[in-house]
Order: sequence, then C-alpha cells, then structure tokens
Amino acid sequence: MKLKIKDMDIATGGILVGILNKKDARKFDFHPIDRIKVKKGKKTETVILDIAESRKAVPPGRIGLFEEVLDSINAKDGDNIEIIPARRPISIDCIKKKLDGKKLTKEEIEQIVWDIVHNKLNDIELTYFVAACHSHKMDMQETTWLTKAMAFQGDNLKLKKYPIMDKHCVGGVAGNRTTMIVVPIIAAAGLTIPKTSSRSITSPAGTADTVEVLTNVCLDIKKMKKTVEKTNGCLVWGGSLNLAPADDKIIRVERPMNIDAKSQLLASVLAKKASVSATHVLVDIPIGKGSKMTNKNHALHLKKEFEEISHKLGMKIKVVITDGSQPIGNGIGPALEARDVIYILKRDNKRPLDLEKKSLMLAGIMLEMSGKIKKGNGFKKAKDILESGMAYKKFIEIIKAQGGKEPKKIKIGKFRHDFSVKRNFRIKHINNRTISRIARVAGAPDDKGAGIYLYKHVGDGVKKGEKIFTIYAHNKIELEFAKQALEKLEKILIY
Amino acid sequence: MKLKIKDMDIATGGILVGILNKKDARKFDFHPIDRIKVKKGKKTETVILDIAESRKAVPPGRIGLFEEVLDSINAKDGDNIEIIPARRPISIDCIKKKLDGKKLTKEEIEQIVWDIVHNKLNDIELTYFVAACHSHKMDMQETTWLTKAMAFQGDNLKLKKYPIMDKHCVGGVAGNRTTMIVVPIIAAAGLTIPKTSSRSITSPAGTADTVEVLTNVCLDIKKMKKTVEKTNGCLVWGGSLNLAPADDKIIRVERPMNIDAKSQLLASVLAKKASVSATHVLVDIPIGKGSKMTNKNHALHLKKEFEEISHKLGMKIKVVITDGSQPIGNGIGPALEARDVIYILKRDNKRPLDLEKKSLMLAGIMLEMSGKIKKGNGFKKAKDILESGMAYKKFIEIIKAQGGKEPKKIKIGKFRHDFSVKRNFRIKHINNRTISRIARVAGAPDDKGAGIYLYKHVGDGVKKGEKIFTIYAHNKIELEFAKQALEKLEKILIY
Repeated sequence: MKLKIKDMDIATGGILVGILNKKDARKFDFHPIDRIKVKKGKKTETVILDIAESRKAVPPGRIGLFEEVLDSINAKDGDNIEIIPARRPISIDCIKKKLDGKKLTKEEIEQIVWDIVHNKLNDIELTYFVAACHSHKMDMQETTWLTKAMAFQGDNLKLKKYPIMDKHCVGGVAGNRTTMIVVPIIAAAGLTIPKTSSRSITSPAGTADTVEVLTNVCLDIKKMKKTVEKTNGCLVWGGSLNLAPADDKIIRVERPMNIDAKSQLLASVLAKKASVSATHVLVDIPIGKGSKMTNKNHALHLKKEFEEISHKLGMKIKVVITDGSQPIGNGIGPALEARDVIYILKRDNKRPLDLEKKSLMLAGIMLEMSGKIKKGNGFKKAKDILESGMAYKKFIEIIKAQGGKEPKKIKIGKFRHDFSVKRNFRIKHINNRTISRIARVAGAPDDKGAGIYLYKHVGDGVKKGEKIFTIYAHNKIELEFAKQALEKLEKILIY
Repeated sequence: MKLKIKDMDIATGGILVGILNKKDARKFDFHPIDRIKVKKGKKTETVILDIAESRKAVPPGRIGLFEEVLDSINAKDGDNIEIIPARRPISIDCIKKKLDGKKLTKEEIEQIVWDIVHNKLNDIELTYFVAACHSHKMDMQETTWLTKAMAFQGDNLKLKKYPIMDKHCVGGVAGNRTTMIVVPIIAAAGLTIPKTSSRSITSPAGTADTVEVLTNVCLDIKKMKKTVEKTNGCLVWGGSLNLAPADDKIIRVERPMNIDAKSQLLASVLAKKASVSATHVLVDIPIGKGSKMTNKNHALHLKKEFEEISHKLGMKIKVVITDGSQPIGNGIGPALEARDVIYILKRDNKRPLDLEKKSLMLAGIMLEMSGKIKKGNGFKKAKDILESGMAYKKFIEIIKAQGGKEPKKIKIGKFRHDFSVKRNFRIKHINNRTISRIARVAGAPDDKGAGIYLYKHVGDGVKKGEKIFTIYAHNKIELEFAKQALEKLEKILIY
C-alpha cells in the first residue's frame, strides 16, 4: 500500500513510531503495536504502529511518522512511501515463553536484550518481560546469560591490563563518597581502575554529580580509555557511555510497580563491570535503619548471589556488608561532598574521619584482592598512599586528564540556615532518607552548591542552641522550601 | 509548589496526564508515572506525571496539561496552579500482590476494576495486572469476583422481567449471523432478549456492523431499555453503551502479546451478560480448522469453566459446541450478511439453509431453556415462528424501534470479481480466516457493501469455469487489492 507522509514533528528519542488512520488500519488488518516496514526508494525502516482515531491527527491515505523515522529513511512531509507488514520481533515469543514459566536459552536472552537495546520493544512488551522475570525468577544460569548479554551489547572498554579493579556500592547512604578516595589510592598503587559512576536518581548526589564539581565527567569511550591508559584510573559518568544500555530501559518500567527483580539488579551491576572488562570487583552493601537495605539476612542472601554469578562470569568478587545506619562524611550534596573529599586527600584538619576510615578499609581490601599486597597489609598500604600525598597527586592527574584543573575554592550555596535545638541531648539516629530529601528540596543535585553540612554524628552530644547542621541553597525560595520540609520532618530526621 | 500552565493541545481520550520539566521533577522528587494533584481554586484533579527532557516541550516553572485535565479543573494556558504529591492508586499494591502469586480478595479485585474503568492506571501498570493474571491464574472464585466487578462497574440495564435471555458466540466463523434470526424468534415467542453485539475487530463484519446496514445500533441505555420494553428485544452495539467498560481496556494490552488470559475471557463475556441482567445464557463455541478454536478438548474445558462461573453468578447457562469448519451462510460482509438474514426471515428462495438451520437450533435450545417450551419441542416451535412470518414481523418492529425503516433493496458493492477454477472438483475445505481476510481487503466492514458472496459450500461439486464466489467492492482499487490477495491466498482458501 502506498501512502503520503505526514511529518508528526515528534521525537521519542527511543522507539520508532508510525501512525495510520483507523480506516486504513482496519482495511489492512493492522493493529496498534503491529510492526510495519516503511519503504522509500532503497531505504526501509521498521516502525511500531499507532492508530489515529481522527482525520485531524492523521487522515486516511497518509502515514504519520516521527522524526527518527524520517531521518532514517531520509524522507519529509508529503513524500510518497510504501508500507508492508513486518514480522514482530522474535523476542516477543521469547518473552511469552518466560511468561508461561519456561526457562529461556542463552540465544533467547540475547535476542531479548538485543531488541531492548535497539528500541524494538514498546513499554507494554518490555513490561511483560519484567513481569515474567518477576513471577518466574530467572535461575543463576539465566541470570548469568542475562548479565553477559547486557554487558556485551553496547560498547566495551578493552584494556591490555591485568588485574582490572572495580567497585560498586548498593547505595542508600547520604554522603558516603568513598569512590573518589578509593580510585586515586588504587591507581596510585599502580593498579588499573576504570571507574564509571551514576548520577543521582533519588539521592542529593551521585558520584558522577560530585566529581562534576571538579572536572568533566561526560567522556566517550575513547577519551575514557586514554585517561585510564595515562593515569591508571578515571572517574566518569556511566550515562555518557553506551555501556550495558539495556539496563536503564528496564529500570524505567520497573519503577512504577517498585519492582526490583533481583535477577535484573545483579545483572545490572555486574554487566556494567563486565563491560569495562573488570576482573576484580568489590561490592559494598550498607545496611541499617533509614538505608536501602535494612535486613541483614537479605544482605547476606544478595552477597551470596553476587558471588555465585561473578564466579560464573569468571570475575573475582568480594562483598562487604557495612554500617549504613547514618550519613557518612559531613557534606551532603555535590559541592559539599567534593569539599570533604578534597579535605581528606589534602590531609586538612576539617576532613571527616568516618569517610576516611571507610575509604581506607575498602581500598585496603581491593589492594589485597589484587594480589599486589599481602593479606592483612592492605589497610596500612592504603593509609600510606593517602598520607604520603600520592593519592592527592593521582587524583589531580585524573581530574586533569578528564579536562579539569586543580581545584581552588569550591563554591557552596550562599543562602544558609543553621539547625539547632533548644535542649541538650545525645544523638541516637540521623535518618539517611530524610536528610537526603531535605538536601534535594534545597536544590541538590542540580544546584551543585546546595545541600546539608553535618557537624555532628550519631553518639555525639549536642548542647542547647549548638549547630547540628547547616542547610545551603542557591536562592532564598529553595532555602525556604527546605526549611519548611525540615520543620515537617524534623522528628523523624534526628533524635 | 506553584506553576504556570502550558496547554499541550493533546487529548488522550483516556488517562489524565501532566508534564513537568525534568529540573522541577528532580527537585521535588517526582518521577514518571507518579501521581500529582493539580489544584486551581477549589477544583482539583489527579494526573499521571510525565517528564519533559527539554525546555522546548515544557520549561521549568510550568506544567504541561492535556485537554481532559484543563476541562476538569476549568483552567487554560497561562493560569497559575498548585501541585501536590498524590498517593498512587491503591490498586497498584493489589496488582503487586497478584504479581507475587497471592490470591486477591473481592475488595481488591473491585478496586483494580474501578481504577481501570476510571482511567487511573497507565499501560505499564495495566500490563502488570494482565501479566500477573496470566502467570498466576485466577481461581474460579477470583474469576467470579472479577466478572461481577466488571459487570457492575459501568452502566446496567434493569428490567422487571424473568427470564431474561441472552446468547454469545465465541466467534471465528465467517458469515454465521445467527443473532439477527434468533433474537426476533425469541422476542416473538414473548421472551425478553436485550441483545448487545460487538463490531468487527479482525473479521469482515460484527453483528453490530451488519445490523447497522438496516437500522441505528448506537443506542444509549435509556433508548435500549425503551426498545426492549416495547418489542421484547433489541439488536444494539455494546460499544455505544457503558456496559462492563473495563473489558476493552484490558483487551488493548493483551493483544501485543497474544495473551488470552482465560479468566479474563470468561469474565469479559459473562460480565457483559450480567450487566444487562441476563438470567439464561446460551454460548456457542464453533470449532474446526480455520476457526478460532480448533481443538475439541480446549472447547470442552472452556465449556466447563463457563458453566462453573455462571453457576456462581446465579446465571443459567447452556454451552453448545458447533461446527465452525467453514463459513455459515452465503454472504460475508455487512450488507451481504444482512441480505441473507432478510432472505431467511422473508422465506425467500435465495435464503442460505445452513444459516437457517443453525439459527433454529440455537433458538430452539433457548426456548427450552426458558421453561416456556417443553424439552424436545424447541426446534419445531422456533421453525413455526419463523415460517409463520412472526419472526420477520418482530424483526421489523425492533428495527423500527431503533430508528430504522423496513428494508427495501440492500445496496451491494458495484465492483465485482467472479472466482472460478479451470477444472472440475469437489470442495473439501473453505478457510474462514482466509476468506475473512480477502473480504476485509475488499473494504468490509467499513464499506458496508463490500465482501464476498459464496455460491458453494464444502461437499459441493464445482464444474470447470463455474462461479464459486463473487468479491464485491465499492471501488476499483480495493477490488484490485482483493484480487491480488486472492491470488496469493487461493491455495489455502479453497481446495
């Protein structure tokens, strides 16, 4: 059938869409979400069909096309094109199979991941996949295949080095910016650590947001490789690379139902590591009230599964369960956290010792894992590297290789509100989730200098009228919002 | 938070949507598919959130609203409104519960159906529900609750009559327009039969499409009630009424995965019957090659489930398994089928006897079910009513009550193509699916007069060059398309 193009002037950034009037669709037995091939000259593209109910949207005899499709077949409004029915992606049959409770083969999982990566599945189809994996848990073998498929579909970083170190934190703790201290220590020890990090999703800062205060984090894979080859390490945003791209697309449809299909959590983390060729990985699972993980047994179970799949992937792993019951470090928000990191690396008196200690512990374990340092000596070696200034020197090297300069003064939000209480007391609890919420309302992570600076931690005594923390914002209105949020949440935030 | 409205100039006809710039969304911790309340003066409405990546779509400080939302809160472009986070529909927790394999309570099922009917769930959430019911089959108790919830959320037809008769055909057979013959026979016998029918989805004609050749089928519930009170029966399109409206919304997300969750098929059919207060229902399951159901055991299983749930609903049911291996009647397409029906009702020599016989069989069973006619005498009584002209008289009464006139000449497509073959042979098979396909390409059901007229059925001998059927279309191009389709499909269509 031949049709005239209507340019819909819409871009999804993802799946390719074509729209037919319902009359044409009926006549040719096309239904929503059917696939059709659009053909102009020698160029063809497969689109997912949508149906227009009204002539106004798309009249009979025309086909509405989104920008991505027009670009792909090099066509414009008014051009004539031909359409032919196309097969639906094979992966739909595979998803149906899983939905029926059957085990998938390696090839089937690869097909599904390929179609996800290439935007061949729409939201409904992708949701069926997530639902299927939730109802009929993938076994360890399937999860391993999923991890591999996710890791190797997309770009890969290949380095002629061994070992290649990496770390991951399950998250949920405010502050806790260990990566920025661990990476320069490991790199300064002569080990390779091509670290990618995420931006914040629900927290006031992700590692990528914090590093961005000091340097560029949006590197392509070539520039990342150059940085690692030059400095042994890097601190880049994973999102600017095309590493394990299926992951983000899956997370999008999990969120509405709060689904955390464990097979996908494991696959998601380990695929990112495998895609940069990591051979030795340290995973940090913080647990505690107000954190993401609150139950020790769940953490232990997760640890076991991480170990099992890493083993199947031929990757050495160590999983540590750490204290995540309160914020770690003093700053919360990109610039405040970056300042803490610089304090530690530069041995400043204002440095937060809890963050330093945890970072040294993690770096120590990684040094021992690598085989380079004898068991029992890791922590000391990490401490030596930090105290000698080698870690700071390496950090500046990395920052510069990524396009930044040695940091002078870090800009913090001008509008401030000090929090104190009208009684003496000893702090029993500071809630991660609540303090993060307030820091976000103050503007973090978009306003780099917004956030919270803590003067006290759990166990500390506080005198009547003494500052417990300060809220920072870039403007008066947001500071006001944060104060209002604080007022409402104070009772669960700190006691 | 206060925002200025941007009128997006989009109407979904379904769920209510609001769009925030990603910067605003981040700051206030809003995510796609979150619910927010928009408030203007005393009017509030809950919308499902979407996120704009660019300033161009929706800049920070503004909220993009769809037409339905603007109407609901009586607002326009540039107005200031307040937004507040809203709870997600409770049914999402119920869907999660089913997804985790647990049995749902009556109240939970009612909540889910309420939220579906009121457009509170988006495609992803609805898909999770369908996937959950597919992976963790609803038991008979849950299916009964689902049926009731679907039946009573929406409009209901209430009649002070007993019994109230109804019939349903599972479908898949071309022609087979029994309803238009059965309804006037039953109504002429003094029984009440408030029949609603569907339009075609994948076939060349639904009963509603065919009735529409002769009269208006888009009645509201008041007009439908009036028709039934006056004539004992009606022949209306279910889609113009708000009966069991959850059904269509569920079917939309089932289709992409070819899911036919049996609990929903049963609930779907019986809910429509319960919503018109039917007390006695006849279900016809045609089986045979080229039909929807090909396996007798599946049909028997479906029959048993229909019986079990009807029993739980307090509804008398009879399920018959009939021969669906070839088209029934000669005409395929709205006008051609309507002409067959009139031939039968008017005792014309050109009437198709296979369709007449099947209709009398079904009407006979219904007469016996009602208790009005003794067992064994139903067929004869139905035949008497038909042959006496009472059925035709009743049919005209119904047609007129719905706003039509006594039919004179029925208009058939002007462009024709006769099909014959160049050898003598005996017909072994006529494929329902294929013949429907060609009739659709010829323009049915949108072009009422388009379709196919069969001169021969299975078992008939055909001479070289003798007409087997004629394709009808409203214009040359569509006839040409149909001829091309016929050429390609001839070998599987008839042999």
